[in-house]
Amino acid sequence: MKAITSFSTLARILGLGALLALCTAAQAQTDPLPSWNDGPAKQGIVELVTATTTQGTATFVPEPERVATFDQDGTLWVSHPMYTQVMYVLESVPALVKAKPHLAKTPPFSTVLEILKGDHAAIAKLTMYDLEELVAATSTGMSVETFQMEAKKWLAEARDPRWKKPYTELTYLPMQELLKYLRASGYKTYIVTGGGQDFVRVYSETVYGIPPEQVVGTAGGTQYGYGKDGKPFLTKEPKLLLNDNDAGKPEGIHLMIGRRPVLAAGNSTGDRQMLEYTNAGSGARLSMIVLHDDAEREYAYGPAQGLPDTKVGTFTQALYDEAQKQGWTVISMKNDWKRIFAFEQ
Amino acid sequence: MKAITSFSTLARILGLGALLALCTAAQAQTDPLPSWNDGPAKQGIVELVTATTTQGTATFVPEPERVATFDQDGTLWVSHPMYTQVMYVLESVPALVKAKPHLAKTPPFSTVLEILKGDHAAIAKLTMYDLEELVAATSTGMSVETFQMEAKKWLAEARDPRWKKPYTELTYLPMQELLKYLRASGYKTYIVTGGGQDFVRVYSETVYGIPPEQVVGTAGGTQYGYGKDGKPFLTKEPKLLLNDNDAGKPEGIHLMIGRRPVLAAGNSTGDRQMLEYTNAGSGARLSMIVLHDDAEREYAYGPAQGLPDTKVGTFTQALYDEAQKQGWTVISMKNDWKRIFAFEQ
Repeated sequence: MKAITSFSTLARILGLGALLALCTAAQAQTDPLPSWNDGPAKQGIVELVTATTTQGTATFVPEPERVATFDQDGTLWVSHPMYTQVMYVLESVPALVKAKPHLAKTPPFSTVLEILKGDHAAIAKLTMYDLEELVAATSTGMSVETFQMEAKKWLAEARDPRWKKPYTELTYLPMQELLKYLRASGYKTYIVTGGGQDFVRVYSETVYGIPPEQVVGTAGGTQYGYGKDGKPFLTKEPKLLLNDNDAGKPEGIHLMIGRRPVLAAGNSTGDRQMLEYTNAGSGARLSMIVLHDDAEREYAYGPAQGLPDTKVGTFTQALYDEAQKQGWTVISMKNDWKRIFAFEQ
Repeated sequence: MKAITSFSTLARILGLGALLALCTAAQAQTDPLPSWNDGPAKQGIVELVTATTTQGTATFVPEPERVATFDQDGTLWVSHPMYTQVMYVLESVPALVKAKPHLAKTPPFSTVLEILKGDHAAIAKLTMYDLEELVAATSTGMSVETFQMEAKKWLAEARDPRWKKPYTELTYLPMQELLKYLRASGYKTYIVTGGGQDFVRVYSETVYGIPPEQVVGTAGGTQYGYGKDGKPFLTKEPKLLLNDNDAGKPEGIHLMIGRRPVLAAGNSTGDRQMLEYTNAGSGARLSMIVLHDDAEREYAYGPAQGLPDTKVGTFTQALYDEAQKQGWTVISMKNDWKRIFAFEQ
């Protein structure tokens, strides 16, 4: 059976010339990155993949070592005007207040109720400490299965205010193509996100084809215990195990993957160390950073290159300068992406 | 090309009867578990794999969810009279003392020097706290690459005193067969070890075919920083992130894998929670526990079933009773394993 399916046997059956013609035609037809404009970003990706997958070259990387890591918010999907998981946390507050009415008058829960009533400016009142308290109140103290069920339900119902679509449809088509291209080239694709690992794992497989075990994120502890029926289960605890931002990204990559990425992509200062760490490896490496410079089709923010400043996915001029100096690819949404969303015409 | 390689096209070329005969013969020839004696343990494994991989049945498990987790010490390889990693730590002490001579007279380093001189009874003087101090001194404060290099060098040179072989050859052949059988059946195989994650990752791929990202173990933190050349690197820190023993095993499985195992195997009280957690899942599940009852070919210890007591890989009678009650498979090394090591005749 092995002989029949081999290239040489097929060639004998079909005639070698006919087979080679077929293969060449098939290759020419399939651009793996059709939503990318021709340019240095696209070219850099194809060159990296070719360099690392061509046997017999000095830059060849054996398949088990082909690791590609992607930040999520702002790199694989929209994260403006606010991170999707923060929206989940905020929109989970009314149910929490219903169960514990005294919270209605207690900040930061009372502040969230104001925001949800339409006072969007009130969001600026929330500090990091408030957010941590809100995450602890809405996303811990329950079994991992209950959390998964609630997050899944919210994701099915919630809509982004601008596009009126589920958040899970706001992924960038060029990045989806890149994930598929890398996997087809023997790469294992990972999400390495500052977002909550348990939250992203709920949808990563259906949305990106990335299974839960390939999601590295900010992670809290769990506590093993037994239910009334004697069955064991894990409870989500408000205890931080890994803050997967900044230096936490390479540290999290070592903890969860144990190999240095060959390719990494991010979009903000929180990704800097992951991009540095990737780029510092020997052999062919590619670090990429997405610049949100398309106010019309998505959003424009930096403040690199004179773009408006933001607190959500900050891309400073210093980071832009480092990208230039280190030879990272800056992906311009405006110039490098032909299409941004799958739902666009 | 797709049509040519398909079953029906092959069948047309070869003639359906001839092809089916070939397939049946191939199947009959290949027992995936030749080192297992026929009996309930082997039968239970084959039944679990058949149940979870037969499409259209209620027990079918889609491929991405086929997770199998294995303890390492005493489950996949020999861990007597002492864990291999402890041997690594002890045997790393002389080089440490050479670099820092004042340690020669400081316990626990001085105690280790006595042990290495042949005073094996002195090993009983080492407390858990001593071991932690020794691990911190020999396995942290260096870059992850330096640690990997040193561990790899030791593993190549060190010999087990009984078999006079590298520790990496002391893996159980029946378990190696089981790992391969599971992978051939679409399972992702993981090590979930109380041992050090970074240590096991050094050899897991060559020894078990399990890549570093599928090793969950007791893990310390790392610290991201920059060398004199400006290049970033990770330093191993003496800070415990995950104690992957007891309840830490299901907690570690959630952190690193995010799915409940379909099959789990262990050999000691430190594996109890992983086996319970696996068994408590819905559908077909299999929890297995190795009983070391073969003093002649390997070792005999429990103290379950009246076997000698041990501090290294304790298997209590209470654990044995729980295995019976919960329907876990107890693997008797003596009765279930035809061959234990690949190097045996």
